[in-house]
Amino acid sequence: MDALSKNKIKWIRSLRLKKNRDAEGLFVVEGTKMVQEILATQLSLVECLVTTDESTDSEAVTYLTDIATMKSISGLSTPSSLLAVVRKPEFTDSKSSWTLALDGVQDPGNMGTIIRTADWFGITEIVCSQNTVDCFNPKVIQSTMGSIFRVHVKYEKLEDYFDADDRPVFGALLEGENMHSVEAPVRGILLMGNEGNGISESLVNSITHPIHIPGKGGAESLNVSVATGILLSKFCR
Amino acid sequence: MDALSKNKIKWIRSLRLKKNRDAEGLFVVEGTKMVQEILATQLSLVECLVTTDESTDSEAVTYLTDIATMKSISGLSTPSSLLAVVRKPEFTDSKSSWTLALDGVQDPGNMGTIIRTADWFGITEIVCSQNTVDCFNPKVIQSTMGSIFRVHVKYEKLEDYFDADDRPVFGALLEGENMHSVEAPVRGILLMGNEGNGISESLVNSITHPIHIPGKGGAESLNVSVATGILLSKFCR
Repeated sequence: MDALSKNKIKWIRSLRLKKNRDAEGLFVVEGTKMVQEILATQLSLVECLVTTDESTDSEAVTYLTDIATMKSISGLSTPSSLLAVVRKPEFTDSKSSWTLALDGVQDPGNMGTIIRTADWFGITEIVCSQNTVDCFNPKVIQSTMGSIFRVHVKYEKLEDYFDADDRPVFGALLEGENMHSVEAPVRGILLMGNEGNGISESLVNSITHPIHIPGKGGAESLNVSVATGILLSKFCR
Repeated sequence: MDALSKNKIKWIRSLRLKKNRDAEGLFVVEGTKMVQEILATQLSLVECLVTTDESTDSEAVTYLTDIATMKSISGLSTPSSLLAVVRKPEFTDSKSSWTLALDGVQDPGNMGTIIRTADWFGITEIVCSQNTVDCFNPKVIQSTMGSIFRVHVKYEKLEDYFDADDRPVFGALLEGENMHSVEAPVRGILLMGNEGNGISESLVNSITHPIHIPGKGGAESLNVSVATGILLSKFCR
């Protein structure tokens, strides 16, 4: 294994920032299970960092380092023994019958869980407004549990995306129709809004079917990843 | 307002540990919105800490402190201007027609989101195995978004709870029946397992109706709070 230079440490750390991930086309994943998921895909590991003398079964350059250094590089509170720098996946534009659209989801944990949930229900495309959290953010990556390698997450102006698409747009709105009264079509777009503010005013006009999840308790709202799961479970059987 | 002594700071910090919360019957909440939720309930604020000279409209002793001290006391990465020590709610034993049972849920964020989701669907009772994370853990409290004040979360031996109850037990198991083929009764218990290991072997026999959420994508599993939301949405209409 190779020696780990200070410059290399600095470079890996720099990938915490979106602008550097975008410029390099790279991102960081941590943990043996996540790295195994990568090896099972067509993605390429660029470089690996390990704290124990373990093999990654890949052709990537591998550096052996100590736990303190790993801790200084890792984005996790309890770093794993394995960290990898990975080239971002390239997806061909193949639409699933249902697309998930996210308008301004901010919390990395929610974002990761939503990607994982979409993957569970066979959704291969998520389209996000530009102010949605970056899907290659380390915290998002960790909570996708590997689904980031199977779901194509892209960022564009949602108004334009909806305009160019003939599928019905189901939007989660508090004043929408009860989801249980709505017939689920074979294909469509499900639009979910920001954790606090919901769907932007400018997008509400694009919604052809406003829907809501009926509740009878005291909570003001549902967590956005839970709400997404409930609606995908209805639409993507 | 009163002065904040070192002993007082130490005492509030000590409530980060379950054993101290249990011994004192107290817990800590942070943030103006959460404290407002408390004032709307029958719960009593014992003491308040503020970094700005704001009124809490309560009769609790209020201490003015600086941001650095608040940071050293707070469990949040970005502390709020308001922290309160609160007496744990006492609930009378009133069963809702559906009870949620949790077997070893570990992640505080998941636990908080589950409590919030249960509250949304009108569930007033959650019964947890002893190895489930404490519902008064600061991270749980924050992610319940106030639902901790409306949902009675209790800890007991689940085997005994099921034995003493005549309602059907629906357990989320990978090899269960497709949830869409299952008829939802008016009353029942929904049992959810640990994030990684699912439902304990010793509890599987108590399940009268094993069910699963069908998926067709690549994800190995759903997040436990998302899965709970999907199943509650089916059962607690």
